[in-house]
Amino acid sequence: MKTDIQIAQEAQMKPIKEVAETIGIQEDDLELYGKYKAKLSDELWDQIKDRPDGKLVLVTAINPTPAGEGKTTTSVGLGQAMAKLNKKAVIALREPSLGPCFGIKGGAAGGGYAQVVPMEDLNLHFTGDFHAITSANNLLAAMLDNHIQQGNALQIDPRQVVWKRCLDMNDRSLRNIVVGLGSKMDGMVREDHFVITVASEIMAVLCLANNLQDLKERLGKIIVAYDFSGNPVTADMLQATGAMTALLKDAMKPNLIQTLEHTPAIVHGGPFANIAHGCNSVRATKMALKLGDIAITEAGFGADLGAEKFFDIKCRSSELAPDAVVIVATVRALKYNGGVPKNALAEENLEALEKGIVNLEKHIENIQKYNVPVIVTLNSFVTDTDAENAFIQKFCEERGCEFALSKVWEHGGEGGIELAEKVLQTLETKESHFAPLYSDELTLKEKIETISKEIYGAKGVEYAPAAEKQLAKIEQMGFGNLPVCMAKNQYSLSDDATLLGRPQNFDMHIREVYVNAGAGFVVALTGAVMTMPGLPKVPAANHIDVDASGNITGLF
Amino acid sequence: MKTDIQIAQEAQMKPIKEVAETIGIQEDDLELYGKYKAKLSDELWDQIKDRPDGKLVLVTAINPTPAGEGKTTTSVGLGQAMAKLNKKAVIALREPSLGPCFGIKGGAAGGGYAQVVPMEDLNLHFTGDFHAITSANNLLAAMLDNHIQQGNALQIDPRQVVWKRCLDMNDRSLRNIVVGLGSKMDGMVREDHFVITVASEIMAVLCLANNLQDLKERLGKIIVAYDFSGNPVTADMLQATGAMTALLKDAMKPNLIQTLEHTPAIVHGGPFANIAHGCNSVRATKMALKLGDIAITEAGFGADLGAEKFFDIKCRSSELAPDAVVIVATVRALKYNGGVPKNALAEENLEALEKGIVNLEKHIENIQKYNVPVIVTLNSFVTDTDAENAFIQKFCEERGCEFALSKVWEHGGEGGIELAEKVLQTLETKESHFAPLYSDELTLKEKIETISKEIYGAKGVEYAPAAEKQLAKIEQMGFGNLPVCMAKNQYSLSDDATLLGRPQNFDMHIREVYVNAGAGFVVALTGAVMTMPGLPKVPAANHIDVDASGNITGLF
Repeated sequence: MKTDIQIAQEAQMKPIKEVAETIGIQEDDLELYGKYKAKLSDELWDQIKDRPDGKLVLVTAINPTPAGEGKTTTSVGLGQAMAKLNKKAVIALREPSLGPCFGIKGGAAGGGYAQVVPMEDLNLHFTGDFHAITSANNLLAAMLDNHIQQGNALQIDPRQVVWKRCLDMNDRSLRNIVVGLGSKMDGMVREDHFVITVASEIMAVLCLANNLQDLKERLGKIIVAYDFSGNPVTADMLQATGAMTALLKDAMKPNLIQTLEHTPAIVHGGPFANIAHGCNSVRATKMALKLGDIAITEAGFGADLGAEKFFDIKCRSSELAPDAVVIVATVRALKYNGGVPKNALAEENLEALEKGIVNLEKHIENIQKYNVPVIVTLNSFVTDTDAENAFIQKFCEERGCEFALSKVWEHGGEGGIELAEKVLQTLETKESHFAPLYSDELTLKEKIETISKEIYGAKGVEYAPAAEKQLAKIEQMGFGNLPVCMAKNQYSLSDDATLLGRPQNFDMHIREVYVNAGAGFVVALTGAVMTMPGLPKVPAANHIDVDASGNITGLF
Repeated sequence: MKTDIQIAQEAQMKPIKEVAETIGIQEDDLELYGKYKAKLSDELWDQIKDRPDGKLVLVTAINPTPAGEGKTTTSVGLGQAMAKLNKKAVIALREPSLGPCFGIKGGAAGGGYAQVVPMEDLNLHFTGDFHAITSANNLLAAMLDNHIQQGNALQIDPRQVVWKRCLDMNDRSLRNIVVGLGSKMDGMVREDHFVITVASEIMAVLCLANNLQDLKERLGKIIVAYDFSGNPVTADMLQATGAMTALLKDAMKPNLIQTLEHTPAIVHGGPFANIAHGCNSVRATKMALKLGDIAITEAGFGADLGAEKFFDIKCRSSELAPDAVVIVATVRALKYNGGVPKNALAEENLEALEKGIVNLEKHIENIQKYNVPVIVTLNSFVTDTDAENAFIQKFCEERGCEFALSKVWEHGGEGGIELAEKVLQTLETKESHFAPLYSDELTLKEKIETISKEIYGAKGVEYAPAAEKQLAKIEQMGFGNLPVCMAKNQYSLSDDATLLGRPQNFDMHIREVYVNAGAGFVVALTGAVMTMPGLPKVPAANHIDVDASGNITGLF
């Protein structure tokens, strides 16, 4: 069997300008990065922004398991299948981070015959957007420490610096550090932290900004520290906003690549969904809606994280509204949720399936709370049995969802036609009445409790004393009207990663709360979620190689 | 008067594919990054590598002063002037670092009417090469710390980790840090350091590698630490080489842009010349030699640093040989070297000029030790007087050098015709018999002493006890045959930045020595030279801005 990278490397890509032509983009509106990648110019946006929108389909999933779900694979395959049905579909995805790529998870280009290409470029530096974000993040940090060093006119309290440096790398050693050691010329000693770039507020700002002016305004509002009197110090006050915007100017432009079957895919921005808001950029999704009849986008991890934030953060601030939601599940993952160990997932086990399907059930219920029609799809594996598929199909249909098997991994677009037809049928026959879960007017605690109870199924919320104080301060500063971005492990609906299925009778534990005033949300950290991952015992990087002709192997 | 960025933004650039055509490059051999930047493919190198070389002209300078010298401006202007004389010239330059760009020095695209464009792109992310180097550097660091964390099978001594993390940023707070704080899951506590990316060994490796295979072999040899028995631990031993090469695959390809007058400029790699070897990539210079009749390249800072390393490191390892050297000076800088304060440089002062010209004299003598013909050029300022110019001209001609005034800042290529003619005349009439200053066989101490005495004019060399031990260890490990890369302040020929002119009777102080086994040289740190700069009180970043249409201001 071929690996994903082999399939990707054997692909006959079309020049990206030909792919762009299929959705009416002229070569002049492309900024080419090699033959197969391009940025979409601001001028293009100006030309298309008044067009009517296509339909917006969100692809989300059950909670991830080691068995694999295939959300990106499904998004890509669905886009390919739409083309087979002569529908003008445009896919909008996130850019992958180097962290997982060299760590344990691998890249994020889809899989099998449902991938976006060039896969190696996408998984490595792509068009440099994440590097630009890293630079802007770290310029702000350097200017902050330099301000303290050069007299500290703003009276920044070194104990209350909240801005962290970042790298697009899994590097646990940088989680907790002390900077500024040495002599007087080497800075002020203080504790500091690195986060992974995808957890940086600047990533969120870039993804949520409507245009360059909005980007700049949001950057300026970022709170980097508090002064000795407790007042917030912003990027604007450090005079860092202009230079950061200059660094991000090109990164604001969405990137166009293609699927293995030449479907256009706009890939832009990539916050993680556990520790950040988990959605590709607003600009990318809006472009997909203007350029395609159907825009297919996804949100990270399970629907409790990615979809919730897509609805309550991204759609809220950008006035997007989904027309349908596809929930991806696999027979194996549902059995895993039902207690089957990883090495026994190949055997038919209807009992475990029945036990584990409660995870899917909860995600269906959750999406229905937003009043958006749901289609459930099973990303097929060869070991799935007809009885298992039939059980799930009946389960979904009883809950008012469409159901389709998807074989896009094995067959590409052809394998997604059943799913595409169900999606089209849903778009034609069921109306979406999307509304966010909660209103701006609720208090921050009410928002946290609404998400915890309604989406996670918690019975209550417990706050660490520090979190209580932080919530009070954030509301007192005037940020109580912002939505909440929950930082939670992805494996469980609860904040305990070991509780699979549909946990009941648990409390959520809010450890720390802070405001991302530029991004426009309040982050609530639950449980032991980390903003800088580590590498595993045998990192994926160990197996990546390049031959003398430049062919890369071992990326996955 | 227009600023450099205004002139650059008003430039009517040609599409880079048209510029490429003028030196016989087909569009298929370009990897476009937008309309005005392109990477030159490996296939192009394969096509041209057996062609005869053009002539190689190195542009260097006297020691830099706050008065400004204009080495890049002269290189660019000389290239433009050659085109006016119908000569096929190709310029090979270094890429700028974000550090100086946001700090005090500004960008590095030349100045006035002798610039390479697009200036903003070049000074910001360009084609992402430095970001790729930063990523590869920090992946290696993360894999090293992860190895220690996951059982430390190689028995790495955390006290003897020599690999440093890097950022392309001036950030003094990261010079000396402690990493791995927190709990057992957050890594092993140890002291660590960040350097600026341009000082990373990977920058040197990329610039000195002849091809991808050579790059990979060099990366694998990088020594990252010593084990508890004192044996070196390499990148190969950490299984990091393949993944690092994958990150650097595209960064290995030189970048093509243009001057304001559409002369082709290959801009690739950018180690600083004080703390690193200071030359653009071997691949870029070799491509320029194959594509042009005359290749004009430069080396960083004064001839004591950049040119010495160009000759003794870059030319030695790549078998390049310069045909002529242009030394750039200014009347103002020579007067500054003669003791005139910065605010009085506009007045004619022949006495100070006579006193300060010894700096130029020493650099002329130095270049002549390599048996390469010298042309001295004065980068003209409006305040220079005829008497001052005449004095310098006579001084140079008495020493067997050609002399030319250069007005390229004000007049572009037209202002460089006199210089171009002198260069052409030198190439036609004077033979270069280039040889490096010292042979591989000398001991490391003999090499350090040869450079210190012959080039810097020192009377002797003093070694710190640590440096003595390090030298012995490096020779014992078998690296005694490598050339030496001196890390020295750029302002003085000595290791004391305040000694201007031509210091006499001083000793060089060697503080620390280490081997860059991948780059293939031994670094000797002198005086207080730093591998991570800081930002000034008012960073250049404070004044950089972008308007809503994406126009950048304040870059210089």
